This record gives sequence, C-alpha cells and structure tokens, in this order.
Amino acid sequence: MTEYLLTGCGGFVAAHYLEYLAQADFDGQVLGVGTTAPAQVPTKLRFRFEKINLLDFEELSLLVRAVQPKFCVHLASMSSVADSWTHPKTSFVNNTNIFLNLIEAIRTYSSETRILSIGSSEQYRTKDVSTQPLTEMDLMAPNSPYAVARCAQEWLGKAYVAGYGLDIVMTRSFNHIGPYQDSRFVLSGFSRSFAQALINGEKTVNLTVGDLDVVRDFLHVRDVVRAYEAILHGASKGDVFNVCSGRGVRLFKALDVLSRLSGLNYDTEIDKSLLRPMENRSVIGSHDAITVALGWTPSLNFEESMSDLLTYWIESLAV
Amino acid sequence: MTEYLLTGCGGFVAAHYLEYLAQADFDGQVLGVGTTAPAQVPTKLRFRFEKINLLDFEELSLLVRAVQPKFCVHLASMSSVADSWTHPKTSFVNNTNIFLNLIEAIRTYSSETRILSIGSSEQYRTKDVSTQPLTEMDLMAPNSPYAVARCAQEWLGKAYVAGYGLDIVMTRSFNHIGPYQDSRFVLSGFSRSFAQALINGEKTVNLTVGDLDVVRDFLHVRDVVRAYEAILHGASKGDVFNVCSGRGVRLFKALDVLSRLSGLNYDTEIDKSLLRPMENRSVIGSHDAITVALGWTPSLNFEESMSDLLTYWIESLAV
Repeated sequence: MTEYLLTGCGGFVAAHYLEYLAQADFDGQVLGVGTTAPAQVPTKLRFRFEKINLLDFEELSLLVRAVQPKFCVHLASMSSVADSWTHPKTSFVNNTNIFLNLIEAIRTYSSETRILSIGSSEQYRTKDVSTQPLTEMDLMAPNSPYAVARCAQEWLGKAYVAGYGLDIVMTRSFNHIGPYQDSRFVLSGFSRSFAQALINGEKTVNLTVGDLDVVRDFLHVRDVVRAYEAILHGASKGDVFNVCSGRGVRLFKALDVLSRLSGLNYDTEIDKSLLRPMENRSVIGSHDAITVALGWTPSLNFEESMSDLLTYWIESLAV
Repeated sequence: MTEYLLTGCGGFVAAHYLEYLAQADFDGQVLGVGTTAPAQVPTKLRFRFEKINLLDFEELSLLVRAVQPKFCVHLASMSSVADSWTHPKTSFVNNTNIFLNLIEAIRTYSSETRILSIGSSEQYRTKDVSTQPLTEMDLMAPNSPYAVARCAQEWLGKAYVAGYGLDIVMTRSFNHIGPYQDSRFVLSGFSRSFAQALINGEKTVNLTVGDLDVVRDFLHVRDVVRAYEAILHGASKGDVFNVCSGRGVRLFKALDVLSRLSGLNYDTEIDKSLLRPMENRSVIGSHDAITVALGWTPSLNFEESMSDLLTYWIESLAV
C-alpha cells in the first residue's frame, strides 16, 4: 500500500520533503505524481514516479482509486503572484481546479485519505500593518488572481470537510527560501547573482530589482517541511495553520545579509516591470497557533537560511 | 455595434431581462449566448442568439473580439446549492471558470466593456442571525461548493478591477421568484404543486418538502432585473450591491400564502434527501446600499410575487 501520494513531486518543496522522509527513515511507499519527476531521490526511499496531468480528472481518478494512499501531500501549484498577473487563467486553473480535481477524486475513490492542502499568506488582508503579525483569525482579502485561487482552495477544503467529512488539513504558508528554489523567486534570484559574482571573481554585484521596500516573512524550506509533517500527523480535520518564521525581513536587509555572507558589495537598478499591481507592503505571520497545538517552531533563522541558499547557488553554478 | 452581450440567455432571469429591455423600448442590439436559446423573445427586440460553450476560451474570445459589446450581463450560472453538493466540480467550473474565461476574454479583446457579475447571498457568513439583515460589509464565509464558486467569482472580479482596471460591477443576489422559474427551486416547486391541484380539482395539496423552517429573502425576478439595470448603468467600477427584498420569509409562511391564494389546504411530508449539509438557517439582506446609491427599491411584495408565480404555473400546466 502506498502511504504518501505526493503531487508536484518535481518541485522545490517536494525535493526537501523526500529528503526529510529519507532522513526520518520512513520505509513506506511514496508515489510522486505531476508533470516532472524529481531531479534526484534519496536512494533509500521507496519512491515511484508517475507522470499524470492533474487537470485530467479521469486519469487522476484512476490513479487515486488504484492507490488509495494514506496521505496526500498536495504540493503541486503555480505559486508565483507575478505570473498570476501575466497569466491569470493558467494560474487559477493550475491551483484551484487541480485541487478540486484532487479532492473530488479522493472523495469518490479514497475517502479515508488525509490530505494536506497548501495555502498562502497572500490570502490575508494586509493593508493595515498594525494588525501584523497575521494570525489565523485575520480576514481573507485576496488581491491577486493567485490569492483568489488559494482562498478558493481553502474554502473548498473547508466545504469538503464540513459537507462530506473528508479529512483535509490546511496551511497558509508564507514565503519559503532554501536550496533548489527557482531563481525567479526574489531571494533565490539575488543569491544566484551573488554566487555568480563570487565565481566570476567580481567585487560588486549588479542587481536588477523590483520593490525592495516590501517586508516578507521567509522560512527555510526544511522548516516548512517539518511544519507540514507536524500538521499532517497532528492536526485535527479541518484545521488551518500559518506556516511562517514569525519575523519580517525587508528585502533591502536580505541584500545586506548576502553582502555580509559573500563579502561582496552590490548595486541595484529598479526594473519597473518587476513591480506588481497592488503589492502587499508587509506580510508577517504569527506561528503561535501551530506552536501551541503541535509544538512546531522554526529551527533555522534568516541568516542560516540565506547562507544555505547562497551555498546552494555557489555549488550549482560552479559545476 | 452590439450593446448587450447576455450570457445564459436561455435562463430564467434572462427571460425577464429581455422583457424588461423590450418594455423599456431599448433599440440597440442584444446578443444572447449560451447553450440554449430563449424560449421566446419579445418581437420588437433586436435580438440574436449564438450558441457557444462558455468554457471554451478560444470560442468565447473570438466572439468577444468580433462583438466588443458595450455591456456584458453575465447571467449564465449553475445556481443551485443542492446541485453543488451532488456535483461540486460541475458546479464550480460552470460558475467560476466560466466567469474567469469571460473576464479574461474581455480583458484581452474588449477592455472597455462594462460587465455585470452576479454573486449570491450564499457568500455570507450567516451563522449568527443577530447580524441580519446582511449588509455588504458583512463577512464572506462560503459553506457550499456553490458559495465558494461565487466568492471566488467576486474576488476575481475585484482583482481584475484593481489590477487591470477592468470595468466590473457586482451583485450579491438573494433568492429570486417569478414566472419561468424551474420547479426545482423551492417556491416554484410548491407553486407548481398548488397549480396542479387546482387544475385537478383537488382540495388538498400533498407536498414533499425539505426543511421548512429556514428563512430566506425572496425578491420578484422583475425587481431583480430592475436592480441589475440600475447597477449596470449607475454603479461605480468595482461596486458590489446586495439585491434583495430586505424581508425574511419562513418557508412555512410561503405555503400559507399559497394556501390563501389558491383556497387549497396542504399536507407536508419531509424527504430527508432534500435536507442539505449545513443549511443556512436564515438569510435576510439589507438593500440600503443600493437604495441610497442608486435609488432602487423593490416594487413587488412577497404576496404579489407568489401570486405571479402561481398564475404562471396555472397557465403553464393548463395548456
């Protein structure tokens, strides 16, 4: 029997999820699905990849019926807010409709499966900085196509729990950072630029940037995975938890950290195309709820996380 | 040039919309689209029907680009809460995804079009009866797949207004009643049963019912259309208005009204399959906002509305 069904198994978080399971000596079956296989899988993990289109309900249903996993960790998503403004339909469909396909297939063919649904800090109303850090009681007010998709996902999850008794646990995840992260995400992109400059022997990094004055809550992806496991194994059906560091970092400060870690200076030039409509100024979460309920706390601080990310890029680019 | 693009033109509200436009001597072009043509169209209206699948983005885009309507009145929907529990995916896709296709096609090919987006009272959190009547400031807390779809629709609408400057005006519409309404909707079904009994010469109507203790806010569909026209021509971009009568009616009371109007007695038997998961106990709206902003008020009261509905069924069934 397959214990974990992992969607989006070729992605950034999934890579760390597989490492986590291997390090925890998990000896059950893991079935990864999605459009791409993981770049690498820890050898001791009993892992199998199946390429499927999660938008194809028939295909997904056949698989769910055959496998009936104990857990479904649903990591597949298009998680870029910026991309949701350039391709709103693609973003929405690949978040909400995929999720709806998944829970409908599980409701129909494997109703005992526990599902971990990943939401986003973008769901919150964040106009008013004085209300931060954001707790799970704060209001939803999605202001991008991506945020709407995530809100719809959470509400569908809640309706499936209340109306059908499905076993869904949910997160509102804040920004992640860590090795393997695509350089389109801001701090991974900056780290890549610093790593490239180091490799090239340059003294100064020239960066094309968007709005560096925004504040975000960045959590190391390994802590993200630890939180997901805590929720998957400890939360009550229908629970929703913030997954965050609890600290806000202004993007300017992240550049100072990279400068200190690398010993390089930097220059910035603003590219207006990187400015998003209605950017949230500040997004900081509270992890009090998950800490109280499940005992989870972050284990890596911001500097450690950035150091990990920079090291990853140095190793990747030096190859 | 086509002035009105009417989606869902074969439906209940659309029938009244076309009558309204004819009675108002509207002399522009009306293009109706959807899966079915209207059963009848007022002869003096310049109306054309085109059968299209609103889920087919290419097809819809071609049409929007060719037509570039001044107004798009988006009436196409699957508006049954009960059906959304039996077919959640179909309900969601045929509400939210159709809407997203429409606004994306209009954003891309006809960005000056003003769009009327229809939402629902089901979007509100209604646990606490003391907060009623519901105003536009009350919280969203969708608790059915249908309600989630309508919330997502409104949020997408707001994101398209704020992020792209699209001209969308929105409603949260409460229950409608009136001629042509499908008998699956509760008061139309009851009216049909009373009409059939009258025609059969029976003294007592036997009704199979769900929960008769719930309270809903019913508005005559002709008043609904008047409100939609007021919003379409008078609201500011991004506005959202309740469309409702402002009065709550317990379903029991509706049966008493039908009994009085018809002179018949009635017996009820509860069918548990008609009970919905998590039924909202009471849903009553406030129309203060639209009254203050646009001068709209209901013109027909509940008894007049029921009388109209009963007459419609008597005429339909007597044929």
